[in-house]
Amino acid sequence: MTYELYYWPGIQGRGEFVRLALEEAGIDYVNVARDKHGEESAEKKLLKFMGDPGLVHPPFAPPVLKAGELVIAQTANILMFLGEKHGLAPADEGGRLWTHQLQLTITDWVAEVHDAHHPLGPTEYYEDQKTEARKRTALFLEQRLPKYMGYFEKVLQQNSSGNRLLVGDILSYPDLSLFQVVEGLCYAFPRNLSRLEGNYPEIMALHDYVRRRPRVAAYLDSGRRMAFNEDGLFRHYPELDT
Amino acid sequence: MTYELYYWPGIQGRGEFVRLALEEAGIDYVNVARDKHGEESAEKKLLKFMGDPGLVHPPFAPPVLKAGELVIAQTANILMFLGEKHGLAPADEGGRLWTHQLQLTITDWVAEVHDAHHPLGPTEYYEDQKTEARKRTALFLEQRLPKYMGYFEKVLQQNSSGNRLLVGDILSYPDLSLFQVVEGLCYAFPRNLSRLEGNYPEIMALHDYVRRRPRVAAYLDSGRRMAFNEDGLFRHYPELDT
Repeated sequence: MTYELYYWPGIQGRGEFVRLALEEAGIDYVNVARDKHGEESAEKKLLKFMGDPGLVHPPFAPPVLKAGELVIAQTANILMFLGEKHGLAPADEGGRLWTHQLQLTITDWVAEVHDAHHPLGPTEYYEDQKTEARKRTALFLEQRLPKYMGYFEKVLQQNSSGNRLLVGDILSYPDLSLFQVVEGLCYAFPRNLSRLEGNYPEIMALHDYVRRRPRVAAYLDSGRRMAFNEDGLFRHYPELDT
Repeated sequence: MTYELYYWPGIQGRGEFVRLALEEAGIDYVNVARDKHGEESAEKKLLKFMGDPGLVHPPFAPPVLKAGELVIAQTANILMFLGEKHGLAPADEGGRLWTHQLQLTITDWVAEVHDAHHPLGPTEYYEDQKTEARKRTALFLEQRLPKYMGYFEKVLQQNSSGNRLLVGDILSYPDLSLFQVVEGLCYAFPRNLSRLEGNYPEIMALHDYVRRRPRVAAYLDSGRRMAFNEDGLFRHYPELDT
């Protein structure tokens, strides 16, 4: 079965967390955001799909994965589905819940990254909330970022399986998402990340390990991986990276 | 098996979404936030539990549910566990994913409610971000609240089972959470809610239905249900409810 991934064209955004899982698991999928007729055509397809009155389970927002008859939205929910179906999560109940718990904590973290440049919410432009963004980003970098980094560093240290992954001894979907968060933070806050990364050796080792996974490496080197930009979740505004 | 729910004392917060599911399902549980020795003792128990170095799956933040050997955190994750174990979710894969997708959309909504009074993030007091809170709340009430309300109204309308619930023909955990969101919004923004509620008859009917469920009603009338207050997620600041 070929899956279809619906997402906004032009940005990595939350869709990228799903793409990394699809790529790592070697799953055949149509990336609807990349259309040979260009971004306008891709967006038209997304909006047509999302607005289809025949959809039994209408999504609130993309990304949306179509897997045969299933239409699944919410990034962490899609990843749970892919993880359990395609070997990116343990099979036992406790392991599945723990894996999802870590993913939901990454979801919270990513929302705070977004809110750092959009403290007044998603409906106004960054340019119209720069003063507030400066305040929120300073608090984020000083207080929240170390809290999240410290938490995931501890989880990696505590994994008794002897490898350097988040859950047991298998690569799981939050490993891929944590890689993507580090990628994004290095893009958005290069000065702060180079200052902080020495404190989190396990996270940086995991990032390095995921980057070298053959399928992930092939994807990152392909033209299919979009670049980060200032329309996405992780934005590089030098005035915020102080 | 008696479950244990760990959460901050003194507020409903995210713990309340879990309590409503425990109450509706008639599950035997210890509410660790309510301690006969008072709030200080309850908080001490919470922090001791959260900081136990022997925890194999350490949580980032409460609520945390201890169910025998399982220690589960993240509200939506706990609800998924309870829902599937105790009849508050459908049994088929598509139904389970849809139920969880709705819950994760409620998670996003609740985070936006919180950020309306804390636009600079969770680490500063409301009093230190009142100007920003006024801006964000105005945008939330004008643009985001109708978007979430409209979405859930549509989902309720579209449910072809002929009842007025979110998922198929059973009461599921997002029904209980949607009830709690409406409760919280009516507390936080009474002027806006009385202006808006006529537009969302299905949501208000669901709210009413949940409130009358025998176990929920018994819980709401008991001394065990805490009152909303200005330390929780849903806060009534008259200056924001314009």
